[in-house]
Amino acid sequence: MKESGIGSQKIIRRKRDGELEYLPDELTIEEPLEIRVGRKPIATTMRTPGHDEELAAGFLLSEGIVRGRDQVARVAVGGENRVVVELTDGVKLKLSSTRRFGTISSSCGLCGKTSIDTIRQNFPAIPSTDIRIDIETLLSLPEMLRNAQSDFARTGGIHAAGIFGVDGKLKIAREDIGRHNAVDKAIGRAFLDELLPLERHLLLVSGRASFEIIQKALAAGIPIVAAVSAPSSLAVELARDSNQTLIGFLRPPSFNIYTHIERVIL
Amino acid sequence: MKESGIGSQKIIRRKRDGELEYLPDELTIEEPLEIRVGRKPIATTMRTPGHDEELAAGFLLSEGIVRGRDQVARVAVGGENRVVVELTDGVKLKLSSTRRFGTISSSCGLCGKTSIDTIRQNFPAIPSTDIRIDIETLLSLPEMLRNAQSDFARTGGIHAAGIFGVDGKLKIAREDIGRHNAVDKAIGRAFLDELLPLERHLLLVSGRASFEIIQKALAAGIPIVAAVSAPSSLAVELARDSNQTLIGFLRPPSFNIYTHIERVIL
Repeated sequence: MKESGIGSQKIIRRKRDGELEYLPDELTIEEPLEIRVGRKPIATTMRTPGHDEELAAGFLLSEGIVRGRDQVARVAVGGENRVVVELTDGVKLKLSSTRRFGTISSSCGLCGKTSIDTIRQNFPAIPSTDIRIDIETLLSLPEMLRNAQSDFARTGGIHAAGIFGVDGKLKIAREDIGRHNAVDKAIGRAFLDELLPLERHLLLVSGRASFEIIQKALAAGIPIVAAVSAPSSLAVELARDSNQTLIGFLRPPSFNIYTHIERVIL
Repeated sequence: MKESGIGSQKIIRRKRDGELEYLPDELTIEEPLEIRVGRKPIATTMRTPGHDEELAAGFLLSEGIVRGRDQVARVAVGGENRVVVELTDGVKLKLSSTRRFGTISSSCGLCGKTSIDTIRQNFPAIPSTDIRIDIETLLSLPEMLRNAQSDFARTGGIHAAGIFGVDGKLKIAREDIGRHNAVDKAIGRAFLDELLPLERHLLLVSGRASFEIIQKALAAGIPIVAAVSAPSSLAVELARDSNQTLIGFLRPPSFNIYTHIERVIL
């Protein structure tokens, strides 16, 4: 996470003592990215440039458009702020699913209680296995993710997502101005490397856990999701139904467990 | 901001002393909302229920689909998690603009540098007037917004947006699990009440200032935007081009000014 993502400019700062200073400041870069499948534009998202192929792969996975690495022939940057995904011959683009979910979706015929059912049809629940994480390992993760972040410390305006083994090893860390994008980049990397399903892994996000964060973890087969801030009601419902352990307010030495406590060694 | 938005359930909490307790917890409610114009679904967003008509109105305004109150005949809740907007007879739905911007947009023919130019074609720059805000007033705003929030204190998972007069009076405060939604609800209320353009006003957001937050403020004619956290690079660019004052890290007694410092009485 050393590259890109930062721009600088001059600002005026009022200091704590009331004095004003004129100084350079660094900003998180935000630019639109268009994701295409073949020639068809699927979505546009405002993101921090970098790891765009991963973002596209993670997005298509989260939306149920692709399931396996073998369905993707090629992911390539195709012009400024555009990524083009070529599906393998014979793989059909199912656009109806694209349009239903996600911050980027544009219409939804099934708002309400049916949402979770439909997500569950697209993504089976996590299998029950003996995967567990101990408290000391869990408590060590937020600092590891912060240490892996370069941009955050400098700008304070960027989210992080980390994929850890349940043994506490950091496997992938990604940053983005958007929480969902950071997760898409992390799981997109794992997808491209053919590491899915991430059965023995945990996803940590620097902010809140929304419905979509849980959905993305589910698409990648991740059994444990932890967030530094609060989960939403729908995130808790989806995690419960899909057999995912959901931890919130992971702020050592404290945390909350919302669902499937059996994976935490208390 | 007293109504709705909160659900409760039992959780396990690890306390600071390492003890575990089993207790009720409150969660921010997140559910999908479908926005329709007539019979046509325009967008779906994950939002905290409540003030849905305002959210729809603010969204349509921000996307350039409607400009004036007289273009909207009716905004009504139309079934569970759905809002239906009826345009006035003779007002055409221009869908191309809808699809281009916003977290909810689904395709974009103009990614990159042209984005700001296109936004600027849709929304003229703020006129230069003598509107100014003094530092003491500015520093008082975050606490006023926090005091207006009911849900945040209880769940820690909700964003707020406040519209203030430049004299420091809080006019409208709205909360939502999504930052953009909170802003749409606040400016949607002002739109429905025919208060636009909000020339003598400031928008304060509890989180970061992205490109889209600046765009929404511009659509409502708001000359000053303040954020408790960082702005993005594109937010700064758009604010500069559209003659908006952008303040970030508004954390009394400190703050940063990124653009158009002339509206702050230093």
